[in-house]
Amino acid sequence: MKLLGGAIAAVDHGGSLGRASALFPHAPQPFVDLSTGINPHSYPLFDLPATAQSRLPEEGRLRELAEIAASTYGAPSAAHVAAAPGTQILLPRVASLVRSGKALVLGPTYAEHARAAAIAGHAVAEVDNFDALAEADLAVLVNPNNPDGRIIERDRLLGLATRLRSRGGLLVVDEAFMDVGPTEQSLAGDVGAGGIVVLRSFGKFFGLAGIRLGFALADPVTVERLEAQLGPWAVAGPALEYGIRALADAEWQAAMRQRLAADTERLDALLRKSGVPVAGGTNLFRYLSLAEAPTLFSALGERGVLVRHFADRPQVLRVGLPGSDEEWHRLEAALAAWASRRGDAPKEIVR
Amino acid sequence: MKLLGGAIAAVDHGGSLGRASALFPHAPQPFVDLSTGINPHSYPLFDLPATAQSRLPEEGRLRELAEIAASTYGAPSAAHVAAAPGTQILLPRVASLVRSGKALVLGPTYAEHARAAAIAGHAVAEVDNFDALAEADLAVLVNPNNPDGRIIERDRLLGLATRLRSRGGLLVVDEAFMDVGPTEQSLAGDVGAGGIVVLRSFGKFFGLAGIRLGFALADPVTVERLEAQLGPWAVAGPALEYGIRALADAEWQAAMRQRLAADTERLDALLRKSGVPVAGGTNLFRYLSLAEAPTLFSALGERGVLVRHFADRPQVLRVGLPGSDEEWHRLEAALAAWASRRGDAPKEIVR
Repeated sequence: MKLLGGAIAAVDHGGSLGRASALFPHAPQPFVDLSTGINPHSYPLFDLPATAQSRLPEEGRLRELAEIAASTYGAPSAAHVAAAPGTQILLPRVASLVRSGKALVLGPTYAEHARAAAIAGHAVAEVDNFDALAEADLAVLVNPNNPDGRIIERDRLLGLATRLRSRGGLLVVDEAFMDVGPTEQSLAGDVGAGGIVVLRSFGKFFGLAGIRLGFALADPVTVERLEAQLGPWAVAGPALEYGIRALADAEWQAAMRQRLAADTERLDALLRKSGVPVAGGTNLFRYLSLAEAPTLFSALGERGVLVRHFADRPQVLRVGLPGSDEEWHRLEAALAAWASRRGDAPKEIVR
Repeated sequence: MKLLGGAIAAVDHGGSLGRASALFPHAPQPFVDLSTGINPHSYPLFDLPATAQSRLPEEGRLRELAEIAASTYGAPSAAHVAAAPGTQILLPRVASLVRSGKALVLGPTYAEHARAAAIAGHAVAEVDNFDALAEADLAVLVNPNNPDGRIIERDRLLGLATRLRSRGGLLVVDEAFMDVGPTEQSLAGDVGAGGIVVLRSFGKFFGLAGIRLGFALADPVTVERLEAQLGPWAVAGPALEYGIRALADAEWQAAMRQRLAADTERLDALLRKSGVPVAGGTNLFRYLSLAEAPTLFSALGERGVLVRHFADRPQVLRVGLPGSDEEWHRLEAALAAWASRRGDAPKEIVR
């Protein structure tokens, strides 16, 4: 168990080209940004009505979004859905749903959960054992997990939720990457009983991280509490319009799941060819665990291919999916160059 | 002093065409929506780079926005600026900056302030006397006030802030309509001393309420606390791009201030012609106080002209500015029809 007292400080994340340029000033631009788990094939952009920008977002449109989100994610009803400008801004609000106590986060995982729980006044610790979560007032896990893709089965989650609920505790399951499955492990349909909050991210699977849209699925009373905190017009007009259209587009979603599965296979094959084993992940990112991770990170970065590293776990990398043919080729070339240099290195350094 | 114990419930606001249609089902469509104080002449829309929607908003771009906002609003520096997806979502966070205590709101005013303070755990009361605010832990006022346009001078505000600060209290000044002045009464330049939070709204003056952008101006430590609550990527990509361009466009702003001043004169003349006195307001909305307000509201509504009424103050209306020539004509015709019918009504009903 790792105590996270100082977790209120800002956390480094992937996805910043400004930081990438500072880190690799001589890299060829533009960067191939594989540092996030955001789908590079975004939902097709369309012309918004001018009123989406100029007018206050309509309450009726927000209800429509909640209906569609409930249906797409499998929540019991629209009353079980709170929409927000991204899941990120929900984290401290969700963590504040239970009185300050002991927050346990199943780690290693997305660092913002620990930070949000600390901000909400909890004593926060990271645990590496699922069963330890039962001792929490607030238990948080990401399913499938970021960055390693670890999946906890729905039955075990429901058992945990029951135990927590009996003591007034809360289980938060961040399903940010659940769009690419395995959806049978989702708790979206189970939030009606209370004591469970499921977080769903719109921007990752739909490749529209900039518009800021996310959801909390929970029992209706909890949804009302969250909505009271957000206040009216929390979701911007463009996010409403994209959310309504894209979440209703089952055809695009099904085709995209297939495409991402194929892209993931292609990425794994590419990594394998360079002698890099894939240790886990989802169909939106792959998880690498190897001694040479720091040199691989630098070698790719110097060639303008940005992957995600983790300050506290130097042997771990996360690699997103390339989008265009050019991005695939640049990744392939960068990996090949690294693999050939690696062969030349003295054995004792390579281990 | 009016106790506002039940203020956590949702509040009715202007700007909903869904509600307007329900209220006036036979009105000619589209509605002329004068129910908000949002500028009908929005900042020119432009094509966003696709990355504004697809990528996570860049930290560097957010810093740029904070620089420009500080300069435009007159805050000491970018470190005194917290950007958010609208000021609305900031209200409970700002109210939570001080320990739960006594929140006093100078009323009547924008109802969300009382609701937000109640959510933050304060005992909330509305006061109608500025001097009474000195007794608060959290004092909130809107300057210029919504809906009546009442202005409190900067010197008096600074005196209040000093008194509150000495007891660990906080003064919140919502300057949502300060873009149309009088800017010499703004506290934007005074937030460095602490104990003051100034709220600025982007969407109203720039006519882009749908993109959701607002700011809290405060001392740097308070700004950091607010930013920690919001987390990374709080401001959407489109809001970043519009904010940076529009806030830097001093020429557009100066021309728009003139235009809104002229439009306001035109609106006042139109109202006067129909025998409706203007009791106050700003150059983004006018404040009417008359016994016939309920019949005026209905008469305009039935002709598809929507103004703002207030459930708890039936003799008060707020009227925004028409945008197009057609909107002006429809307002003029609706006012004329009401004025002629009014002449026919029995005197004792008219009073």
